[in-house]
Amino acid sequence: MEVSQDRLSIIALGGVNEIGKNMYVLQYSEDIIVIDCGSKFPDESLLGIDLIIPDISFLLENKEKVRGLVVTHGHEDHIGGIPYIIKQFNMPIYATRLTLGLVEGKLREHGLLSTTVLHEIDSESKLTLGAIPIRFFRTNHSIPDCLGVVFDTPQGTVVHTGDFKFDLTPVNDQYADIHKMASIGQQGVLALLSESTNSERPGFTPSERLVGVHIEETFTKATGKIFLSTFASNVHRLQQVIDAAEKTNRKIVLLGRSMVNVVDIASKLGYLKLPPEMIIEAQEVQRMAPHELVILCTGSQGEPMAALARLANDTHRQVEVSPGDTVILAATPIPGNERNVARIVDNLFEKRAKVIYGSGSVTGMHVSGHASQEELKLMLTLMKPKYFIPIHGEYRMLYQHRLLAEAVGVEVDHIFIVNNGEVVDFVNAEARQVRKVPNGNTLVDGLGIGDIGNVVLRDRKVLSEDGVLILVITLSRSDGSIISGPDIISRGFVYVKESEPLIEDVHRIALTTLTQLQEMKSNQWSVYKQAIKESIGKFLFTQTKRRPMILPIIIQV
Amino acid sequence: MEVSQDRLSIIALGGVNEIGKNMYVLQYSEDIIVIDCGSKFPDESLLGIDLIIPDISFLLENKEKVRGLVVTHGHEDHIGGIPYIIKQFNMPIYATRLTLGLVEGKLREHGLLSTTVLHEIDSESKLTLGAIPIRFFRTNHSIPDCLGVVFDTPQGTVVHTGDFKFDLTPVNDQYADIHKMASIGQQGVLALLSESTNSERPGFTPSERLVGVHIEETFTKATGKIFLSTFASNVHRLQQVIDAAEKTNRKIVLLGRSMVNVVDIASKLGYLKLPPEMIIEAQEVQRMAPHELVILCTGSQGEPMAALARLANDTHRQVEVSPGDTVILAATPIPGNERNVARIVDNLFEKRAKVIYGSGSVTGMHVSGHASQEELKLMLTLMKPKYFIPIHGEYRMLYQHRLLAEAVGVEVDHIFIVNNGEVVDFVNAEARQVRKVPNGNTLVDGLGIGDIGNVVLRDRKVLSEDGVLILVITLSRSDGSIISGPDIISRGFVYVKESEPLIEDVHRIALTTLTQLQEMKSNQWSVYKQAIKESIGKFLFTQTKRRPMILPIIIQV
Repeated sequence: MEVSQDRLSIIALGGVNEIGKNMYVLQYSEDIIVIDCGSKFPDESLLGIDLIIPDISFLLENKEKVRGLVVTHGHEDHIGGIPYIIKQFNMPIYATRLTLGLVEGKLREHGLLSTTVLHEIDSESKLTLGAIPIRFFRTNHSIPDCLGVVFDTPQGTVVHTGDFKFDLTPVNDQYADIHKMASIGQQGVLALLSESTNSERPGFTPSERLVGVHIEETFTKATGKIFLSTFASNVHRLQQVIDAAEKTNRKIVLLGRSMVNVVDIASKLGYLKLPPEMIIEAQEVQRMAPHELVILCTGSQGEPMAALARLANDTHRQVEVSPGDTVILAATPIPGNERNVARIVDNLFEKRAKVIYGSGSVTGMHVSGHASQEELKLMLTLMKPKYFIPIHGEYRMLYQHRLLAEAVGVEVDHIFIVNNGEVVDFVNAEARQVRKVPNGNTLVDGLGIGDIGNVVLRDRKVLSEDGVLILVITLSRSDGSIISGPDIISRGFVYVKESEPLIEDVHRIALTTLTQLQEMKSNQWSVYKQAIKESIGKFLFTQTKRRPMILPIIIQV
Repeated sequence: MEVSQDRLSIIALGGVNEIGKNMYVLQYSEDIIVIDCGSKFPDESLLGIDLIIPDISFLLENKEKVRGLVVTHGHEDHIGGIPYIIKQFNMPIYATRLTLGLVEGKLREHGLLSTTVLHEIDSESKLTLGAIPIRFFRTNHSIPDCLGVVFDTPQGTVVHTGDFKFDLTPVNDQYADIHKMASIGQQGVLALLSESTNSERPGFTPSERLVGVHIEETFTKATGKIFLSTFASNVHRLQQVIDAAEKTNRKIVLLGRSMVNVVDIASKLGYLKLPPEMIIEAQEVQRMAPHELVILCTGSQGEPMAALARLANDTHRQVEVSPGDTVILAATPIPGNERNVARIVDNLFEKRAKVIYGSGSVTGMHVSGHASQEELKLMLTLMKPKYFIPIHGEYRMLYQHRLLAEAVGVEVDHIFIVNNGEVVDFVNAEARQVRKVPNGNTLVDGLGIGDIGNVVLRDRKVLSEDGVLILVITLSRSDGSIISGPDIISRGFVYVKESEPLIEDVHRIALTTLTQLQEMKSNQWSVYKQAIKESIGKFLFTQTKRRPMILPIIIQV
């Protein structure tokens, strides 16, 4: 068999050994294509950081080869990095209509819309970027208009699934292209990149329709107002809420910026069938009977500033939760959000509301958008790949996905669990993993992209735990004598007014240390500062078991 | 019916509308009895705080009436506050043998053992503290030797369940006193205080024996080393691990300070049947075959410094996890700990270990120690209380427990969901809730108990997110001219070396602001400081969207 001599390379720049900031790169010869450009939220160790995006040094080093960005769908972990990356490096973007609608909003917010080239595609589109022909197939997920991507390179066909599940009874007839997937597999797949989010879950993820059944049941029984909170981007769930509201003669109120925004985009683009007369404004709630209302709101993950939290805290200006109202949390709390969600449920119960909360598998009010083990095996079976690279998941998820691939017959040494930056190269349709490209987390803090490093984060950590103690000392330039100070300022350590004896001791020790140094005739300020840090640090730890940051400032006049 | 004229009061000082820091108070006439004295861990908003304990102002104000502290069992949320409270206010402590053993350890650590009076009791003990006769009954829980407490006051009988479940096939024959409970209920209970931890869970919590079955099954199949991590205080589970190890001819290695400590106390006091020849030291692991070993270790909640995390990170000096070893996490991650646990599982899979992890209801390796709904209803049915106060749980748990009480026939207006500090008074065996006593969180930070307030915490929050920028300016005392500065020091904000233009701008703006103020001939330093804070704060927010703490320091010489 004759294959091209040129090398094909697959690289994850984000999304493996983590959940979030997905970015994958395919390079064949002199052409580079980027797939997805996500962001992720920092964990609690990254103090003050707003967002994490992929490090794109590799793309910047290869600017002239990059042919474009293909986006599989409109979730934040696939599009959230776009404005920050486009600021560093502009490239044309290819995505379906709804995805583009969401991307446009982001670009507009950052003043980048007019300078970025956007191409609308659909699952039937065929592109050639550089020398690489690209096809697509439609998948099911918790947002409409999701794509799997097929790259027909001269080395062989590479398939990237995007996020998916198999929903055989989808809402709005958005069927997955299962026959197309079968035919792609039949033609031969060199390498499959498939998502691993739910690879730890046995079985088959239930259809979104199941949620619709439970929503309708609850709407039929409810007597007061109904509040339902879910991810705004889950357009199919919004559709089911709208349908149930229509059947039970309730009007819909939208609360929360992203809810209003997504409903607006999705209706305009035809993804949501919403009769305009069904929507009423928040200020009209007062004049409606409770049983005529459904309030669709953001904040299902307990976000403290979102609509649901404001309703629970009685800080929403126009709408309130009353005894006998039904509140549905149509979402399973993501690890890390449980406490915030629990606070909201507590507050709603205090208002004597009927609250439907907890895991979707118990309430029936939420199903996952990701493939469980049997679906992952189905995708692997359809695609019959020679090589398999599990993506989109933490290590144990990639590992479990590997076990699934082995179970359906992929050869053990044809499965590559890679780290971000590790390259899988294909030469003569044989894969090797030997090299690495630059990669990492770029931290976004306010307007800064990548300007926060470890030193700043380490300082924030110390400051957050024990605060800071500042000593300002003014010395004479002529004879080194103390002109004023030490003046002591403390923040986040102890409340100085209540700790006078402690602060007096600090003053005394600083003076003693200074005097000793002056007797040694040292005039190296770094020595002074180090000595004060050590003597005061030691004293404070003995007295309080705390280690504030100690900042001696020496001024010479 | 003749009842005493004196008032009976029940007060929660900690443990309602929260999980943790349990402390309940019963007062009859001039006698006060305290039940439990727990601690809880701070959430992420309480930066740098080590521990939270109850505010005991009420006890300090009524010192001469307090007759003693009765402890229901040895978990941290029931005993963790003891050394900190005893430092403020010493009182005699009553508890069972194992509980006392754990309390003694804490008192010894804080140098309080010799000055505290300890009384060993058991479920058959009868005490009279002040004028109040007290009886006990044995309950099942995830630590041995747990008590429910019965106060036979002249107003009527008050029952406090402590933590409990009904384990009808308990390990080591530690049966609950179900007949005694029935007889207490038969004699008449004025008020029941019952724990609510699992009141959201339908059904009946499985027996601890179930875990034993799964442990033995896994031990029988395993070929390499076995690591099992669980709460050290779950002595019955440790017993089942020991039994399974004995059956499969494995020796036991103990890793982690609390594991060594609890096994030591529990064996000495007879709660754990552990043949001494079964225990080997960590350094002996090297010379044993893998199939001869069970490593029992701490860290099942992902605690970063505990044995399991060190094994997963390869930083344990004596023992390592090898391919084919089995690692059992015999615990369900508590909300907030999932990420740390997940990191450990990732690392263990990277070592090619077989890892059994996740919810106990899936793995069978963990069961809760708390009563589910059917058990809570059983307790309510046995006790037949006139009044019911659900305790030990967040609001939604107390609320669900209330619904259960209603379902078994407690009158709706005889159920009191209280906040910490709210008092339920009984006069002529009728309850009212109208008054409140001081209550709250006392924060422990290092050696400080209660010395950290809101100002300090607010400062830590600001410092943690955006750091601090300090400007030191030296002015002439005679004419107000600038002698030196502004010197600018930044920590946790931006790395100054990489942000020179920004810092130069800050310098310039501070000088401009100063000059303007000097022209106005102001010599109020607070005005100067405020003006600098505002101008610099505004500038930095525009430039960076960050809000560091700005500390202008003006020195006059």
